[in-house]
Amino acid sequence: MRLLPLLAASVVFASTLPAQEKPAPPIDLGDAQMLRRIYDAALVDSPAFEQLRELTEKFPGRLSGSAAYEGSTKWAEAQLRALGCDRTELQPVMVPHWERGAPERVEFLTAGTRTPLAALALGGSVPTDPAGLTAPVIELPSVEALKNADVKGKIVFFNGAMNPRYVIPGQAYGEAGAQRNRGPAEAAKRGAVGVLVRSLTHALDDLPHTGNTTYLPDAPRIPAAALSTLAANQLSAALRADAELTVTMQINSRWLPDAPSANVIGEIRGSEFPEKVILVGGHLDSWDVSPGAHDDGAGCIQSIEVLRLLKAIGYQPKHTIRCVLFANEENGLRGALEYARIAGDKKENHVLALETDGGGYSARGFNIGNAAGDAHLKAARFKPLFEPYGVFIFQAGRGGADVGPLMAKGNTVAGLIPEAQRYFDIHHTRADTIDKVNKRELELGAAAMAALVYLVDRHGL
Amino acid sequence: MRLLPLLAASVVFASTLPAQEKPAPPIDLGDAQMLRRIYDAALVDSPAFEQLRELTEKFPGRLSGSAAYEGSTKWAEAQLRALGCDRTELQPVMVPHWERGAPERVEFLTAGTRTPLAALALGGSVPTDPAGLTAPVIELPSVEALKNADVKGKIVFFNGAMNPRYVIPGQAYGEAGAQRNRGPAEAAKRGAVGVLVRSLTHALDDLPHTGNTTYLPDAPRIPAAALSTLAANQLSAALRADAELTVTMQINSRWLPDAPSANVIGEIRGSEFPEKVILVGGHLDSWDVSPGAHDDGAGCIQSIEVLRLLKAIGYQPKHTIRCVLFANEENGLRGALEYARIAGDKKENHVLALETDGGGYSARGFNIGNAAGDAHLKAARFKPLFEPYGVFIFQAGRGGADVGPLMAKGNTVAGLIPEAQRYFDIHHTRADTIDKVNKRELELGAAAMAALVYLVDRHGL
Repeated sequence: MRLLPLLAASVVFASTLPAQEKPAPPIDLGDAQMLRRIYDAALVDSPAFEQLRELTEKFPGRLSGSAAYEGSTKWAEAQLRALGCDRTELQPVMVPHWERGAPERVEFLTAGTRTPLAALALGGSVPTDPAGLTAPVIELPSVEALKNADVKGKIVFFNGAMNPRYVIPGQAYGEAGAQRNRGPAEAAKRGAVGVLVRSLTHALDDLPHTGNTTYLPDAPRIPAAALSTLAANQLSAALRADAELTVTMQINSRWLPDAPSANVIGEIRGSEFPEKVILVGGHLDSWDVSPGAHDDGAGCIQSIEVLRLLKAIGYQPKHTIRCVLFANEENGLRGALEYARIAGDKKENHVLALETDGGGYSARGFNIGNAAGDAHLKAARFKPLFEPYGVFIFQAGRGGADVGPLMAKGNTVAGLIPEAQRYFDIHHTRADTIDKVNKRELELGAAAMAALVYLVDRHGL
Repeated sequence: MRLLPLLAASVVFASTLPAQEKPAPPIDLGDAQMLRRIYDAALVDSPAFEQLRELTEKFPGRLSGSAAYEGSTKWAEAQLRALGCDRTELQPVMVPHWERGAPERVEFLTAGTRTPLAALALGGSVPTDPAGLTAPVIELPSVEALKNADVKGKIVFFNGAMNPRYVIPGQAYGEAGAQRNRGPAEAAKRGAVGVLVRSLTHALDDLPHTGNTTYLPDAPRIPAAALSTLAANQLSAALRADAELTVTMQINSRWLPDAPSANVIGEIRGSEFPEKVILVGGHLDSWDVSPGAHDDGAGCIQSIEVLRLLKAIGYQPKHTIRCVLFANEENGLRGALEYARIAGDKKENHVLALETDGGGYSARGFNIGNAAGDAHLKAARFKPLFEPYGVFIFQAGRGGADVGPLMAKGNTVAGLIPEAQRYFDIHHTRADTIDKVNKRELELGAAAMAALVYLVDRHGL
C-alpha cells in the first residue's frame, strides 16, 4: 500500500445522528462526543496491554485451585483498587481442583515401531494406570457415530474436524466440541476404555488443545486426551494402514478436594441508582498449560479497562458499574453460579451483564439476550453511534457462559463479539501468549464495551 | 471460552432477502445461494494460502527491476494458466530500478560514544558519500514544522508519530506519511543535507519500515532513511540530553536505468459482453527487504483466487473477469499507468476495477468510487447478501493506487477494506511474512471479492 489514504473515506467521528423514538434523555450529539472521548482514552494512553502482559507473565496457568490463580486474584484486585474503585472484593467461592501431574504420553505401536503423538490430557480426565493404558483403537467422526460402533475394550478416537464452512469459528467449535465435552462419557457408557479427541481448531499443526470433559454419574470415568491436528491425521493414516495397531496412553492427573478461591470484584458506585448494577466481566482462570492471554486474560483486562475509561473521561455513572472477574469458568462455572446466587440473595438488579470471552481482537458487535428476546432490538438504536468504530453487529444471543446464571434469573445479558478467525488457532494451548494480542485490537474491544456501558447507563436498555 | 456456542446466533446463510428496486434480473434467493457456494469453495478447499506461501518463499523482495520480481511474474502467470484462464499475458512495461546496495548504517555520536540505530534507507534515496554523511540533527514533528525551522546543513529528523486516535490505521498512515513521502524533498529545498524519518507504524519496536520518498525536480536529492520507532525514541531522548550531537548516515543505494518488466494478466472471457471487463487486482511488487506477504502478495493471491472460485462453482460470467497483478506500485505506479493507457487505447470498458491492497485480513467491506460519486450507494443494495459473512461497509472511496488511473479515465473502482489493525505493524518490513497471514482471513477476503464480482456481473452497478 502506498501513501494514498486508501481508506480515508471512513469516518472517525459521526457528524450526523439519526432521529430516535423514545427514551429520555434522547440520544444526542453529546453521546457521539462521549463515545469519541471513550475511544480516545482507550487508543491514546491505555495501560491495558501492559497489564495483560503482566498478568500473563506473572500468572500463567491460572487453573482453578492453583497458586497462580490465587496470585492473579490479588493482583487483579490491586489493579481495580489502583484505578479508584469505590469498592473491591474477593468474593469467596469453592472451586474444583484438578491437576495434570507429570506430562502425559500418547503413542501408537504398529509393525514393531512406537510413534509418539503430540497430546494433552483433557481437563478433568482421570489418570491411567501408572504403566499406561494400551488398547486397540476405533476412529469415529462424531459422538453420534458411537450408535453404530462396537467400542468395547477400545480407545475411541474422535477425529471429527471443525467445519470450515462456518464463517464464525465459534459455531464450528460448538458443533465439533461435543466430541471433547460429551465424547468420553458417551464412549464409556458403551464400554470404551479411553478416548482420544482431535484438537478443536481449524489450524493444521502440532499444538494440542486441551479443554474440559464432563463425566456422567452413571458411566465409568475413562481417561481422555486431545491430539494435535497433525497427530490426529497421522494416527488416522496409520489406522488405515493397520487397523490392528494399539495406542498407549499415560495420564498422570489427579483430583484434589475442592479448594477455596474467589471472584474478583471492583465497582464504581452509581450516583442515582446505586442498587442497580451494570456488570462487565470475563473469567480470570485459564487452562493449566496456557498463559490465557486471549482466553480470557484479555476479557479481564478489558473489563478493568471499562472502569478506568469511565473515570478517565470524568463520567459519573448513574448506575453502579461493576467489574467481575469470574473464577472457574473453564472447568466448573462455580464463580458465575456463586455470583448469581449471592446477587439473587441480595435482590440486586442487573440492568445489563456484559461478558467478554471470545478473545481480545477488534470488536465487531454484541450479542444481547433477555427473557423477552427483544433486548438486541432495543440496543440496536445505539448502532449509528458505533458504526464509525467498525462495530456493526447487534444480534440476539446469550452473552456467554459466566453471565448465563444471571440470564437464567431474568437479567439482560450481552457478549462482545470480536473478529475471531485467529482465536481457535491458540485457544486452550500453551501458545495463547501475549505476542498473539494486538494492543490496538485489545483497546478497541474495551472501548466498545465502555461505550455500550455508557449508553445503557444514560439511556437504559 | 467454553463449549457453549456463544456466537451461535450469527447466521451462516441469509434466509430472507429485502425487496430491491430495480435491476434486471432482481436480486433473489439464487444470489444468496451463489454467495454461499463462493464462500464454501473459498473456506473448504482453497489453494490460496499455500500459493501465498510459495510466492513469498520463492520470490521475497520483489522490487521493480529485480530478478525476484521477474521470477514472480512467470510464476503468477503459470498459476493463472493452471486454473484455466481463457487468456494470460505478461503485459510489458518499463519500470524504475533502484537498489539498496550494502546495508545502510545510521548512528549518533554523543559524549564520545557512537550508538547504532535500526534504520532502512527510504526507497529511492540517493546514496551518501561512501564514507557517510555526518551532520548535526534537528528534530521536527511534521513537514509543516519546516516553515519555522533553520535546517541548513542539518539532518532533519521527522519524528511525528502516527495518530492513535484514528480507528482506521490507514488514515493515520496517510497523515504521518507526508514526512516520508514529501519530507526529504521539502527539507532539501530549505538546505537540509539528509533526512531521518520515524517509521510509519503504531508498534513500538526495533523494526524499521521503508517506503518510497519522492524527490522534486527543483530541489537537491538528499539521502533519507527510516528509523525504527524505538530508535526514533532513543535519538529523540539523546537530542534532549545533547542538542549538539551528530548523526552519521551511510547509504549505499544506486539508481539504474529503467528496466523492462510486466503486469501479469489472466482472464475468463465473458459469455455475453466479452468486451466489458470486471477487473480484480493487486500489486505483485514488494519492497526489497520484504517477502510482501500482506503487502501485497495477499492481494495478488486473492485476485487469482477470485477467478478460481468462479470456476470452482461453475459460474460462467457474462462480462470478462480479468485478474491484473500490477508492476511497480511501490515506487512508480508504472504498471497501473501503462495498463490504463492500453485499456484506453483499446477503448476497453471497465464495469468495475476492484483492488485489494490493505492486507490479507478478514474482509469488512468495500470502498467504491465513480465520477458521479454514487457507485457506493448503488453497491449498497448488495449489503444484505454480505452481512451473514461479516461484510458491512459500503462507503465512498477511491479503490486504491493501482485502480486510480482507471478511475481518472471515468471507470468505476473499488477497494476491499480488511480488518487492518495489524497491517502497519509489519508493513514495508522484513517481518511481512507468511506466518503473519491467517489462512481463513485470506480466504474470507477472496470470497468477499468474488461475491462482489459475481453480483456486479449479474446485476451491474
